Amino acid sequence: MTQNLFATRASRMKASEIRELLKLLDQPGIISFAGGIPDPNLFPTEAFAQACQAALNAGPQALQYSVSEGYGPLREWLVQHMREIGVDCSVDNILITSGSQQALDYLGKLYLSPGDTALIGWPTYLGAINAFDAYEPRFDRLMLNGNRGAAEYSEAAGEGAVKFAYLSPDFANPTGETVDLRGREYLLDLADDLNIAVIEDGAYQALRYEGDAIPPVLSLEQARKGSIEACRTIYCGSFSKTLSPGLRVGWVVAAKPIISQLVLVKQAADLHSPTLNQMAVEQVARTHFATHIPLLRKAYGARRDAMLEALQQNMPDGVQWTHPQGGMFIWVTLPTGMNGADLLARALDTVKLAFVPGRAFFADGSGANTIRLSFSNSDEDTIREGIRRLGIVLRA
Amino acid sequence: MTQNLFATRASRMKASEIRELLKLLDQPGIISFAGGIPDPNLFPTEAFAQACQAALNAGPQALQYSVSEGYGPLREWLVQHMREIGVDCSVDNILITSGSQQALDYLGKLYLSPGDTALIGWPTYLGAINAFDAYEPRFDRLMLNGNRGAAEYSEAAGEGAVKFAYLSPDFANPTGETVDLRGREYLLDLADDLNIAVIEDGAYQALRYEGDAIPPVLSLEQARKGSIEACRTIYCGSFSKTLSPGLRVGWVVAAKPIISQLVLVKQAADLHSPTLNQMAVEQVARTHFATHIPLLRKAYGARRDAMLEALQQNMPDGVQWTHPQGGMFIWVTLPTGMNGADLLARALDTVKLAFVPGRAFFADGSGANTIRLSFSNSDEDTIREGIRRLGIVLRA
Repeated sequence: MTQNLFATRASRMKASEIRELLKLLDQPGIISFAGGIPDPNLFPTEAFAQACQAALNAGPQALQYSVSEGYGPLREWLVQHMREIGVDCSVDNILITSGSQQALDYLGKLYLSPGDTALIGWPTYLGAINAFDAYEPRFDRLMLNGNRGAAEYSEAAGEGAVKFAYLSPDFANPTGETVDLRGREYLLDLADDLNIAVIEDGAYQALRYEGDAIPPVLSLEQARKGSIEACRTIYCGSFSKTLSPGLRVGWVVAAKPIISQLVLVKQAADLHSPTLNQMAVEQVARTHFATHIPLLRKAYGARRDAMLEALQQNMPDGVQWTHPQGGMFIWVTLPTGMNGADLLARALDTVKLAFVPGRAFFADGSGANTIRLSFSNSDEDTIREGIRRLGIVLRA
Repeated sequence: MTQNLFATRASRMKASEIRELLKLLDQPGIISFAGGIPDPNLFPTEAFAQACQAALNAGPQALQYSVSEGYGPLREWLVQHMREIGVDCSVDNILITSGSQQALDYLGKLYLSPGDTALIGWPTYLGAINAFDAYEPRFDRLMLNGNRGAAEYSEAAGEGAVKFAYLSPDFANPTGETVDLRGREYLLDLADDLNIAVIEDGAYQALRYEGDAIPPVLSLEQARKGSIEACRTIYCGSFSKTLSPGLRVGWVVAAKPIISQLVLVKQAADLHSPTLNQMAVEQVARTHFATHIPLLRKAYGARRDAMLEALQQNMPDGVQWTHPQGGMFIWVTLPTGMNGADLLARALDTVKLAFVPGRAFFADGSGANTIRLSFSNSDEDTIREGIRRLGIVLRA
């Protein structure tokens, strides 16, 4: 046995509380707002069946090795897609990854030496914390309200250097909140002052249920600097929330020297993303994306509405929650002193309700009085019943 | 632009000479022995078309998130498969990876802190060097002839620690050579003396064209120690050379605490391997593996025979080559002073022949007078013609 030989980073690796939690939810009768997973009934399954068939009928290419950069026609489709959301780039600015989780891992690998600083939200996406953590950074709190200046961040970084700020500006996991235009512009100023990269996680970008789209940070930086080649923002996209998570297809958009280096990272790490998956996603994106997104917005939007309304009706005084304009999550802040993990234990036990305690999303271990509710994978009646149950445990 | 912010490891990342070379080979008329890629005409493409259809007809599960450990039925099939090659393990000893390349990356990540030592062959699989290199180790030369003892390795490791020995014991890339039973037993003795892990790359294990199978190193260690839980050997398998490389499905077999930690690595790095790919590979493995392997052995074995015979007929004095019992490669040693890269330039220019100069496979930069020939993706007539051309440039 060789566990005593593990690298120092291994001591920082821990199981995602969420994924471990999901394994406990197989019991019948449980209402789960825990997993941030899309509703499989909304997948374009038939379209994928046809696309796989077409890819394999075209010959063995779909089963053969392919280039680390990714499947050309998919990257071409993404050039158009990025243009539609305000980013002007070419195929050479795009790398296909195995989900945007892999993009976060590769960016951690590319930028972080031990002791370097990554700026993240308190809270932020747990998968980002875990991906970066493997490269043994310090985490510091990214604040977009102007309360901390560049000098303060630099000083806190000590011996290391601040390397990047990570954020999901649209309907973030776990809070559901959106960074407004002013916050995005502030972030770009701060990044210029600090001379750091910005990692923009666009996982939920397409799932807006109200209000107007705000340009991606990368788009705003391009407006300032003219060309993507002058930009420090790295955009990570994903088909997981729109077409299929199980095929593991995401992408990165950045200046060419960054993409070239990420291609080397990918070449050494897994050679390339699966060929068949990229071909199938390209076909389904081309033929179904434009019509599928409105269906998702309608379905998930109705679920969000149902959850917001039920919270209004069932939450006791002192409980606060976010009003997400899109995505899959509502973030609930319990009265100070109340503990989300204890509440989960009681909820599972007494009313068969599951959600995620919020503390896991805080790199500093705070946030004990928060919980994350996902509305993406339950119908409206189930959502109403679940929130009714949450009200019961909260009042007990 | 933020390249100045890259981690120290980025300076070690370089493009695989082989993958860059492959991009140059689109010209008509070129005979290529360069890529170590399987012949796509030998893929069970129709079986995969049926398997994908079956997986997607069964519902949206194939498109949904799944567990980091991998698809249960595939892991169960692998338990049987490992038993057939001499390894006794359970489902909990198996992690599914996105190709065995990903297993090498994750094992580097799990074991190597900067300055630690990885023992590898001179030469060895270039993808292993590149995967490990990202974790900033020292490389030292693994010798299985008894010429270096544990004390010598430990001393050379300096401030770091020797963490593992990596090897591909059957028909290795690039040499095609096999480590005999005595060499495997010696390796286990050395690993016990050094208290290090052994990473056994079984990528080509199933492709034997002559002679009897030699038990995997993991099987031999299990015979010594009784249970896989007491073993330090980590076996990496792959479907890339048997069923399909483009689906990116491989696996790791090891003691449970190692697998548990690798699951955490995978969870943080890409969540899980694509669900559909694992379901399709499970079906094709179950229904076709046993009949497909003999077909591959026959086809690739005939190509190996053709190349060996042609080498015998065409190589001038002073040129030596290996006699692989399986796999995809023959390794050619040119007379001292001759340079494989120069020979390639001449071969491309004068006789439209491609192969891989051997130096890339040496972590110490030696091996200038070697070249790697792949026989897997050319028919016998093409092989004969290609080796005839090699004889011409060598004599010129």
